[in-house]
Amino acid sequence: MTMTYQFSNRVPKSDEDPVGNILKVAGSPDVISFAGGLPAPELFPVDQLKRVTDEVYDESGRQALQYSTAIGDLQLREQIVKRMARQGVQTTTDNIMISTGSQQSIDLTAKMFINPGDTVIVEKPTYLCALDVFRSYGAHIVGVEMDDDGMRIDQLEAAVAENPNTKFIYTIPNFQNPTGRTMSAERRARMIAIADKYNIMIMEDDPYGAIRFAGDDIEPVKFYDDHERVIYLSTFSKILAPGLRLGWIVAEKSLIKKFTLMKQSADVHSDNLTQHIVAKYMAEYNIEDHINKIKQVYRKREAVMMQAIETYFPSGVNYSHPEGGLFIWVEVPGNVDTKALFDTCIKHNVAFVPGEPFYPDKVTPGTFRLNYSNMSEDQIKTGIKRLGSAIKETIGESVSGISGH
Amino acid sequence: MTMTYQFSNRVPKSDEDPVGNILKVAGSPDVISFAGGLPAPELFPVDQLKRVTDEVYDESGRQALQYSTAIGDLQLREQIVKRMARQGVQTTTDNIMISTGSQQSIDLTAKMFINPGDTVIVEKPTYLCALDVFRSYGAHIVGVEMDDDGMRIDQLEAAVAENPNTKFIYTIPNFQNPTGRTMSAERRARMIAIADKYNIMIMEDDPYGAIRFAGDDIEPVKFYDDHERVIYLSTFSKILAPGLRLGWIVAEKSLIKKFTLMKQSADVHSDNLTQHIVAKYMAEYNIEDHINKIKQVYRKREAVMMQAIETYFPSGVNYSHPEGGLFIWVEVPGNVDTKALFDTCIKHNVAFVPGEPFYPDKVTPGTFRLNYSNMSEDQIKTGIKRLGSAIKETIGESVSGISGH
Repeated sequence: MTMTYQFSNRVPKSDEDPVGNILKVAGSPDVISFAGGLPAPELFPVDQLKRVTDEVYDESGRQALQYSTAIGDLQLREQIVKRMARQGVQTTTDNIMISTGSQQSIDLTAKMFINPGDTVIVEKPTYLCALDVFRSYGAHIVGVEMDDDGMRIDQLEAAVAENPNTKFIYTIPNFQNPTGRTMSAERRARMIAIADKYNIMIMEDDPYGAIRFAGDDIEPVKFYDDHERVIYLSTFSKILAPGLRLGWIVAEKSLIKKFTLMKQSADVHSDNLTQHIVAKYMAEYNIEDHINKIKQVYRKREAVMMQAIETYFPSGVNYSHPEGGLFIWVEVPGNVDTKALFDTCIKHNVAFVPGEPFYPDKVTPGTFRLNYSNMSEDQIKTGIKRLGSAIKETIGESVSGISGH
Repeated sequence: MTMTYQFSNRVPKSDEDPVGNILKVAGSPDVISFAGGLPAPELFPVDQLKRVTDEVYDESGRQALQYSTAIGDLQLREQIVKRMARQGVQTTTDNIMISTGSQQSIDLTAKMFINPGDTVIVEKPTYLCALDVFRSYGAHIVGVEMDDDGMRIDQLEAAVAENPNTKFIYTIPNFQNPTGRTMSAERRARMIAIADKYNIMIMEDDPYGAIRFAGDDIEPVKFYDDHERVIYLSTFSKILAPGLRLGWIVAEKSLIKKFTLMKQSADVHSDNLTQHIVAKYMAEYNIEDHINKIKQVYRKREAVMMQAIETYFPSGVNYSHPEGGLFIWVEVPGNVDTKALFDTCIKHNVAFVPGEPFYPDKVTPGTFRLNYSNMSEDQIKTGIKRLGSAIKETIGESVSGISGH
């Protein structure tokens, strides 16, 4: 007799992993998948990383393989100080902790601030794995609508005012996951003003900001923060390699102290060998050159996807026009059953991630996320053509006039 | 004005990190430190790791740098299946998840099972960072006394009977941290019988078991487990290199599924490059040869420390006689103020970790942990001589007769 396990309330009741299942179906070799969020592996600087890794082993192998500090490698934090300065954020190595990727940064921040019942305000839709984390700590999640300029600040203020137990706002201001939308500078400043007024924190999750291939850079929300209420998160996953699982947190010094205590308890510290490798890579190469290569490739892929969408999608379908990042968000009007659309797409050998898991509460039907970073231009053309056919098959030749917008 | 942060109940109220402070003081260049728990870095197989890392970059660089699965690299899990078989545990790759080190395994297990108020039963004393984790999830911690054969099973049964909300027993059966003691085979079987009787889980934390340099191997508690109630944890930290932050969990398949959901939410997956490196290292080299080198060095260091203790400690001081692992536990009888003893030691330029943080509740005074893995034989002799002087200075020349045991 196998025992019956009694899990804590933090554990999802179901073993179902709907997105995992989608990615499994989408992973079939015949399917052109726009479902994942993988960077283009052909751009990983394998030879350069190999060279600096050899140097790390030769120069400081024993140190890199030994235990280290929870706050993270000093050389790496020094490199991150420089990167933050390029984005308009002046900071110090004492304000930075290295994490095992953005997901851990989100988890530690949530663990640090959320008591069961506390409110977290998020963009609607938003990064689904952040929602999972917030739920696991018992958060009450409130979604705020977005438009092309990001989170709607009028609705944000109403949400904060209605929820006096709000702990923080979670925002992905640049090329948001899943919508690809970017918050305007004006709204960033207004978000800070509201946080000041109601004395709440902001978790700024910025994995994609460096991958801007059109338009002008906008300073992070953290840039507008005079009261140390923004916890800024970023990662090497999209600008270097996600397999290395390295990200960073920028916050007020006393908060970084708390973060290092939480981090020690979570996994002692992040992979020290990998921290040494990335620090050396950034010291010996200009990572901006590498990021520029990524931008060029993603710019082209996005343009090809946009062009194909215009050509093959029925009129009336709405979609975002990202100036960077990895994702386009599609809204098919007319109360479409996204699950049925997904199944039709799989028959046509093309896949996306349906909108549902990105919504904290009420789901907008007919929405889905497309990724363009991980497919060749030819695959993008073919896949979007198939997707167009699947949409037409599901909703009829044209939906123009059905949608009000 | 900087804002006042409102933390969750999981966050320690104090920013104090007493053990961190001890390690800082102990880290002064003049101090011979037996305080840490670091493996000997001169034994890290740097050249071999460099060679297999180059091969990983050449053969599967893009794959190793890309996102991977939460359960972990299949090749690495296959190697772990073989290692577990050597220890008498027959398992499969579906029963294993790779973690970012044992600390994460402990954290995920605690998060998965502990609701606030649930009881966790631990050895007294035990690994202090496990206590931190259990506390952070609101556990009620109950300590059970140990003797030279490990946890006292009569007391264990009483503790379980008194605490019907017991979720699991946390045990470090081999060369326990901090005591260096090993649980007898007979007690392991009895622990399982009690867990069966009361239908509770066991978390078996085994970072040191492979480093046995005297006596005979004892099968893990998991070996005696017929009802899938043991979650077995181990790590590459002590048998290869802790900087890599790689450990593993062995558990029933449906539990591993839950673990992968929790892991995805915690940090997506562990460093993929490092997983590839360790899998290749284990495929191309015999890690047992490497472990044998570690055993030889640690055996000598432990013997030197034992000899020095016998020579320089006043009579009446008790200490454990580990057959493996990294630690010796010392009990100075006579109600000694360990803090005062520590301060005297620092004046003598020698350091240990005082017993206090290892106790879940009532602290036994005059106890401390010594580490012998990270100091040369000469340093061990000199350091123990200094420590003997400091003890004598604190308690007088001889304490024989003061202690009842």
